[in-house]
Amino acid sequence: MCEHCGCQERNKELEIKKHLLEANLDLAAKNRDLFRKRGLKALNLISAPGSGKTSLLEATIDALKGQIPLAVIEGDPETERDAARIRAKGVPVVQITTGGACHLDARMVHQAFHQLEEETFRLLFIENVGNLVCPSSFDLGEDVRVVLVSVPEGSDKPAKYPAAFHKAQVFLITKIDLLPYFDFDLEECKRLAWKINPQLQIIPLSARTGEGLDKWLSFLQGLVSK
Amino acid sequence: MCEHCGCQERNKELEIKKHLLEANLDLAAKNRDLFRKRGLKALNLISAPGSGKTSLLEATIDALKGQIPLAVIEGDPETERDAARIRAKGVPVVQITTGGACHLDARMVHQAFHQLEEETFRLLFIENVGNLVCPSSFDLGEDVRVVLVSVPEGSDKPAKYPAAFHKAQVFLITKIDLLPYFDFDLEECKRLAWKINPQLQIIPLSARTGEGLDKWLSFLQGLVSK
Repeated sequence: MCEHCGCQERNKELEIKKHLLEANLDLAAKNRDLFRKRGLKALNLISAPGSGKTSLLEATIDALKGQIPLAVIEGDPETERDAARIRAKGVPVVQITTGGACHLDARMVHQAFHQLEEETFRLLFIENVGNLVCPSSFDLGEDVRVVLVSVPEGSDKPAKYPAAFHKAQVFLITKIDLLPYFDFDLEECKRLAWKINPQLQIIPLSARTGEGLDKWLSFLQGLVSK
Repeated sequence: MCEHCGCQERNKELEIKKHLLEANLDLAAKNRDLFRKRGLKALNLISAPGSGKTSLLEATIDALKGQIPLAVIEGDPETERDAARIRAKGVPVVQITTGGACHLDARMVHQAFHQLEEETFRLLFIENVGNLVCPSSFDLGEDVRVVLVSVPEGSDKPAKYPAAFHKAQVFLITKIDLLPYFDFDLEECKRLAWKINPQLQIIPLSARTGEGLDKWLSFLQGLVSK
């Protein structure tokens, strides 16, 4: 190893990160308690950019209209585009723009939740920053963690990004209307995901055609009735 | 603001991050010097997971065979899958598995480069971890930063993830053979990217059909002849 390969600061950084993750866990527990007291279930949606989180939320809002009142917290490095899309559906929404930061944390969600205090809802969707790596490390106080991979991204993603799957309860394989155009092996993708997390509930679906959406909606109906 | 919203450690974290970024810049400068002395040009490929970085490299290797000798450094949180794909093309390759970390840094690239010391090549492709956020902050010592967005991800990505575009010289819009199946506005995507970085060279292409690949290859040929 040559003289340039080390870095003295690395251990100090790891120590601070550990501390921050612990502080985040404390606040996540407080969020969880707050959500429980308010009688709502929270879902943390994690995926790469462009996997279709916002499109799925739009389809979910349309399908649950008049059945289950819901609210959304949107996370993005920049822009209010996603919040505008949700607001257009008549649903309470708060946009968190992280100013370039790569994930949401429990503190940001806590602050955003304050802005929803006047609203009444049973389901809270938290759309994380588009990133399949960093959001995995940060508990937001959610009841259910949902990880999404879209067909164009490729069926190898669970093997390459296992951390996103470890603590998830639901894995949505999105944009399955595109299966005919891609070399995406659905069974291989499921097998890789179950290898990491055998309890994972896997739902392939398309927000565009509605295929598979019934299973996702049943899951949400089951969740609020718990 | 309620009692749960602050975190004492945040300033300390920011300070250490600043220090690490500065240390990274020093080592990146050393990498750059090393690459120059070895008479090669290095490219840092940044995109979300599944944007087609490895497929583009496969197509590039096929097209440049016998013309420009090249080598590849692959970055992934886990697995050696991408390195195996490149190795099958008969090109020298080193896989960096970051163990979950969300980006490559100059130190990792420096160590990987040591493993290519016996090889002779003119172009070094560094495929970063699939992540459109964190890799943007870390100079690897590359000559050219290339950012990729694929058609299925959506044309709004430059606006949402501007940091990835700030320091890039080339923006590849990949998988353009899929334009008929997606609501992707090519002109809007270019406009958003140029708004962030007016010097950006934008090349729409498809590694599958070969459309637009000639412009990318011309860029690479121009780069090595500099």
